[in-house]
Amino acid sequence: MTDRRLVGPVRIVGAGLLGASIGLALRARGVDVILADISPSTVTLAVDYGAGRAAAAGDAPQLIVVCVPPDVTATTVAAELAAYPDALVTDVASIKLAPLTELRALGADLSRYIGSHPMAGRERGGAVSARADLFVGRPWVIAGHDAITYGRAAAVEDLALDLGAVPIEMDAAEHDSSVALVSHAPQVIASLLASRLREASDSAVGLAGQGLRDTTRIASSEPGLWVQILAANAQPLLGILEEFRTELDAVISALAEPDAPGARRAIAEAIAGGNAGVARIPGKHGQAKHFSQLIVQVDDTPGELARLMAEIGQAGVNIEDLRLEHSPGAQIGLAEIAILPEVEHRLAAELQSRGWKITGEFS
Amino acid sequence: MTDRRLVGPVRIVGAGLLGASIGLALRARGVDVILADISPSTVTLAVDYGAGRAAAAGDAPQLIVVCVPPDVTATTVAAELAAYPDALVTDVASIKLAPLTELRALGADLSRYIGSHPMAGRERGGAVSARADLFVGRPWVIAGHDAITYGRAAAVEDLALDLGAVPIEMDAAEHDSSVALVSHAPQVIASLLASRLREASDSAVGLAGQGLRDTTRIASSEPGLWVQILAANAQPLLGILEEFRTELDAVISALAEPDAPGARRAIAEAIAGGNAGVARIPGKHGQAKHFSQLIVQVDDTPGELARLMAEIGQAGVNIEDLRLEHSPGAQIGLAEIAILPEVEHRLAAELQSRGWKITGEFS
Repeated sequence: MTDRRLVGPVRIVGAGLLGASIGLALRARGVDVILADISPSTVTLAVDYGAGRAAAAGDAPQLIVVCVPPDVTATTVAAELAAYPDALVTDVASIKLAPLTELRALGADLSRYIGSHPMAGRERGGAVSARADLFVGRPWVIAGHDAITYGRAAAVEDLALDLGAVPIEMDAAEHDSSVALVSHAPQVIASLLASRLREASDSAVGLAGQGLRDTTRIASSEPGLWVQILAANAQPLLGILEEFRTELDAVISALAEPDAPGARRAIAEAIAGGNAGVARIPGKHGQAKHFSQLIVQVDDTPGELARLMAEIGQAGVNIEDLRLEHSPGAQIGLAEIAILPEVEHRLAAELQSRGWKITGEFS
Repeated sequence: MTDRRLVGPVRIVGAGLLGASIGLALRARGVDVILADISPSTVTLAVDYGAGRAAAAGDAPQLIVVCVPPDVTATTVAAELAAYPDALVTDVASIKLAPLTELRALGADLSRYIGSHPMAGRERGGAVSARADLFVGRPWVIAGHDAITYGRAAAVEDLALDLGAVPIEMDAAEHDSSVALVSHAPQVIASLLASRLREASDSAVGLAGQGLRDTTRIASSEPGLWVQILAANAQPLLGILEEFRTELDAVISALAEPDAPGARRAIAEAIAGGNAGVARIPGKHGQAKHFSQLIVQVDDTPGELARLMAEIGQAGVNIEDLRLEHSPGAQIGLAEIAILPEVEHRLAAELQSRGWKITGEFS
């Protein structure tokens, strides 16, 4: 219970998925957690789940974590700074410059505030979906500004580390332009691409393969939350989308006259630009590493995938990445297995000798 | 060796990945396969791999399968129709109207031609990457036209079935507009989105999560091939990209003045449109089925994933879909497991009782 950095108490304002998950994780380490929410029944639910206790007179939190929607983050932070003049305050909103700017305008005591952003991926569910290890292994951005040093804000880094996250220092503007690129623009683009399917025929969507599934998966995100995020990060996002539109215009012009001089070059440059861009994304463990890929046919029955995994384990090979793909109408799946290039041929031979069908092998 | 529909011989023109894979599959069923390619060394390589034999005087193929790049598909088909006046000819190019139109212009004998398109996903590698079961479980579009009936083209359906694919009848125009939607537009959009990462800072791409990886994965496709595909399917693709641009313009206008009346509604409608579109994509086995999801923490060591799969199998639960996700800098992975909703709570309890950490559960 003492394997922790934070002393506490920690006050959490907003007991939804993120707030309740932070509470559960800190309670598991023995930290005194105080839960607050504009909805009393939300607090009661989160207390029932073991995420902390209700506030009481005389509470003196070391750290306050504001976990409310982006639109009300700054006013909530300001109220907490005023109510608890000895506490350090952070928030977990997915945009960082807007709350900071609003807090400056409100005249808040910025020497006790530093924003943060746990990149915990999913934002659905409320306290019911809360998990103590939601943040394990995830980046947790701590967004510095000139009224506070990272040293004075050490409790926020302690919070990230106590929750198993990877703290990353980055100023608010850099954070916002980074997430505009790696999160907000992909969200807009995926949504607009998926929108095209609304009027599609059943036979057309019946041809959908993994490419369409991958490019549109995040289009199922919740509109209410995303309106707040996108509107609050409009400027950096706008720049990215305008660049996207300029390149899209070039492709559209080329497709309008595909045999005109330069048209095919314009299309080739668009695809090649994508090659160069996707190569920038770091692989597993933060490295831009190259893996070989085996595609193995797996019957769609319980235990078959387990048997495959077990036999790969028996061959002493670690699976770097794994994806299961299904074809429409087929009762089989294809397991795409990423492995280190040096074990590729040995594993392929081993699996074939055990009767597995390898339907693809890529170095 | 007699479990087959085709009689043969089958002549394959173009011994790259698709041609050689078809050859391997037919050879495995005992069909006489004749391989041809403009490159003699490509034929020799494919023969060495067991995909068939070289052409000989007096060959009388039942069926000719043209597996050459889209740009030269029609002229190759026309030459084969002329050279083998008794054979049925098909091709496997990913666009179907352009070859048909070109063949009409060439005055080819369309009563013996029907185009087809195996949706086999990967188009890299040549004969070296060929696999006899590349097409197993994949849709194989057979693109009818008014100069031939599906009945007279039965050998092409036999080919698809002999290779384990799922034949789908669809006319050339419907095929092209369908693949423009489910394959070509996603390719362009993913490439343009990935292009935005070219100039990104290392710290920005360091925040990349699964969303960015998914939306840009297909951006690593080969430019040379895609120029041919996109240029040949310019018209249907253009319509989709222009609709995309219209909606993108609306989002850009809204983000330029995010507090103007109607701006937030415009953003919300873009995200909601994506929700509606992505819901159209059929799930596993062609059904639009809803699954529950468990996210389980897995140590990044050999055998751990196998142990998880084995214990899920022991619980009698079939995994409907599976994905392994890694966080930058972390030595653990998260396995996202899709299962039938009715087994979700039982499996979660079972795995927790065995010591697995469930970091997320979504119904």
